[in-house]
Amino acid sequence: MVEAITKMDEDFTKWYTDVVIKADLVDYSSVRGCMIFRPYGYALWENIQQIFDRKFKATGHENVYMPMLIPESLLEKEKDHVAGFAPEVAWVTHGGSEKLTERLCVRPTSETLFCDHYAHVIKSYRDLPMLYNQWCSVVRWEKTSRPFLRNVEFLWQEGHTMHETAEEAKEETQRMLGIYAETCENDLAIPVIKGRKTDKEKFAGAEETYTIEAMMHDGKALQSGTSHFFGDGFAKAFDITFTGRDNTLQHPFQTSWGVSTRLIGAIIMTHGDDNGLVLPPAVAPIQVIIVPIAMHKEGVTDKANEVLERIQKFCRAKIDLTDNSPGWKFAQYEMKGVPLRLEIGPKDIEKNQCVLVRRDNREKYFVSLDELETKIPELLKAVHDGMYEKARKNREEKTYEAKSLDELKEIAETKLGFIKAMWCGDQECEEKLKEVAGVSSRCMPFEQEQISDTCVCCGKPAKSMVYWGKAY
Amino acid sequence: MVEAITKMDEDFTKWYTDVVIKADLVDYSSVRGCMIFRPYGYALWENIQQIFDRKFKATGHENVYMPMLIPESLLEKEKDHVAGFAPEVAWVTHGGSEKLTERLCVRPTSETLFCDHYAHVIKSYRDLPMLYNQWCSVVRWEKTSRPFLRNVEFLWQEGHTMHETAEEAKEETQRMLGIYAETCENDLAIPVIKGRKTDKEKFAGAEETYTIEAMMHDGKALQSGTSHFFGDGFAKAFDITFTGRDNTLQHPFQTSWGVSTRLIGAIIMTHGDDNGLVLPPAVAPIQVIIVPIAMHKEGVTDKANEVLERIQKFCRAKIDLTDNSPGWKFAQYEMKGVPLRLEIGPKDIEKNQCVLVRRDNREKYFVSLDELETKIPELLKAVHDGMYEKARKNREEKTYEAKSLDELKEIAETKLGFIKAMWCGDQECEEKLKEVAGVSSRCMPFEQEQISDTCVCCGKPAKSMVYWGKAY
Repeated sequence: MVEAITKMDEDFTKWYTDVVIKADLVDYSSVRGCMIFRPYGYALWENIQQIFDRKFKATGHENVYMPMLIPESLLEKEKDHVAGFAPEVAWVTHGGSEKLTERLCVRPTSETLFCDHYAHVIKSYRDLPMLYNQWCSVVRWEKTSRPFLRNVEFLWQEGHTMHETAEEAKEETQRMLGIYAETCENDLAIPVIKGRKTDKEKFAGAEETYTIEAMMHDGKALQSGTSHFFGDGFAKAFDITFTGRDNTLQHPFQTSWGVSTRLIGAIIMTHGDDNGLVLPPAVAPIQVIIVPIAMHKEGVTDKANEVLERIQKFCRAKIDLTDNSPGWKFAQYEMKGVPLRLEIGPKDIEKNQCVLVRRDNREKYFVSLDELETKIPELLKAVHDGMYEKARKNREEKTYEAKSLDELKEIAETKLGFIKAMWCGDQECEEKLKEVAGVSSRCMPFEQEQISDTCVCCGKPAKSMVYWGKAY
Repeated sequence: MVEAITKMDEDFTKWYTDVVIKADLVDYSSVRGCMIFRPYGYALWENIQQIFDRKFKATGHENVYMPMLIPESLLEKEKDHVAGFAPEVAWVTHGGSEKLTERLCVRPTSETLFCDHYAHVIKSYRDLPMLYNQWCSVVRWEKTSRPFLRNVEFLWQEGHTMHETAEEAKEETQRMLGIYAETCENDLAIPVIKGRKTDKEKFAGAEETYTIEAMMHDGKALQSGTSHFFGDGFAKAFDITFTGRDNTLQHPFQTSWGVSTRLIGAIIMTHGDDNGLVLPPAVAPIQVIIVPIAMHKEGVTDKANEVLERIQKFCRAKIDLTDNSPGWKFAQYEMKGVPLRLEIGPKDIEKNQCVLVRRDNREKYFVSLDELETKIPELLKAVHDGMYEKARKNREEKTYEAKSLDELKEIAETKLGFIKAMWCGDQECEEKLKEVAGVSSRCMPFEQEQISDTCVCCGKPAKSMVYWGKAY
């Protein structure tokens, strides 16, 4: 029997931990805060990677690889940046038995390395834009950790681009945020809110930070991807110049943007249920699992293998021929979130049919074996749409509005979710809401609404609507 | 004008450094011994990666990801292993401002982490074989460095597998060596010699190490991939056990195997010439570069773009529409080693033809535009075959035989190349050859020959023929 997991509405945190282990996504390691990506977890990441990588390349980006170690002096070149990251880096102080003359940190992010390189290779406006991306792992010395959500080491991509003008760099910042949002919605079935971070929440060293915010099943927010506009601050600190069209020496304008294995956490907490994972078809390592029924009966295994061979041409399919019972297999692949189960037994074979069962709502379909080529893609699409709709509805139900501080406090005390409320733009009010209601600003969404005219906190005229909430 | 590079026969080392920089493969970084993979260099690695990844998956291997940091106590569990690697690891001693209670090293290789995980997840013979692979970067604190050949940080894959029996593990060791050799020959056009390493040269902690050895243009050897059989030594040190078919508790048998970005060094030094890189078509980021001639003439750019669109369906093609001269472009893409150049100008268009020029031997072909779909793949294949044959011939010409120590010394003093000579199996003789002739044992090849009956060094009865040489 597949062991039961904690019910999600009993203890969401425990449910999460149970799922990541029982679905064979990860194993804990002997290294504090670092986890092991098992084959199923890593295959999920590979699929996410491939989708993004294709989209990055289609928009003119090229992959590069920078060193994983950063000399302390390089990290210190941009003051806001080092202030933000120095407290949470791992320091290499010795090589073999020798003490190093300068400490090196394991990269927490690579702006400084990219800038150091850009200073070498950018000479003329003809070299711009420079559109680079890097897939790698980074280390941040976090005190607490949770698989995928907060780890000392995690996998990500970091895009770093340089542009001739501020306007072009700002366009790039938006373009990449758009790709993140579109991929979350169309591939991961996760609805997201696009918006701008407040100054308090922006990236260390950035002028503007944009974000996509997703809501998890429990109503808490997950920042799922960010895109930053740096102006020419780093360019000045690193002395990066180019000869412009007018023959003057200028500083280029910079962006960076990243998504990480956090997205796997987002998938788990957006879509999962009491039976385990529910994976979006676009990234599921196995899209269809074939479970033969009454395997010992003549012809069943042969027919099931024949079906496998056919459907592998258009989807990621597997067959389970182990001697575990069908019931055990059903539970096992539900735990792993496989979008479709294909059952086939002697009676089905007689009728030239099979049974397809959707993971997201357990709906059952009797499908003629002649129609697999059309029905399976249709059902995978239906699973995606069903998942997206369920997530959207959850977000809708858990999104509130507050017009006064009391109202906001009451919602925050009794419910988890997004609270839409107006803000004057003062960091003091932002800090006060954190203090008295425990919520942080998630973003100032691009789609603004006029909830009221005054700041929910101080009553002064409001500048923008903000999504507030508790976050992972 | 594309700047000239050092001639390879004048100064091969300088030639190499010129090529890696001028072909835009890498840039030096501010981090000692670490380099930057620029887009062209990284695209080359991505193509190599994809070929191997497909072959690993086709032979049942799954990708995983282990932490990049290893606690000192874990590294120390296998005595030979720690002795081999501890002197060359980078030590993390601080997280933020806090001193760690236990030092962590940045992984130089991941046997210890895999074993730690295997101890958790292997329980029964049903869990075996466990066939894992990891793509990552590793750090080894080398004193000297050269791009791709010897770096403090490099990219690689490390396969780690566990098996029920020693025999199965040995088969795996050979299978993966076979994949390495076949890929070098069929995809990278590099002939290699498969063989076993002597005990002196084997991997720290391994029972047996197998290798593929390639010969560079200058006659020096490059170890291009290794595959290790560990027996159950690590399994015992890490207390990894499984319940066998006979219901007894047993230790599994282990392998590991790896290739790295060194292979890019092998490609450069095997195939390059005085005009720069020569890239094997299977991994070249650009297989065909289209250079329009007399671009300002009406219809040329349109026709060239039309050709691009057509050939992009079956090869990696690009077009250069910059206002540099055709001559500059020819030199530029020769430097970058693009296998085929496609020239097309007004006269060609009139004749419904184009000119195809091979990078490897500069042979020129006038090809009808109606035949591109057959001619380009044919010529790419011809380039591959030409490159392989040239490399094989170079190796043949620089492979010598020695029957006495004097003979071996004379060859080693006057020539670079492989020296085939018999060996008694004693490490003393191996060390003496290093001392008096400056050569190391490259491998005991699977294809043995009987050069003489006695050890080239001590005169005692010979046990096997060894390839000796100077190596990168």
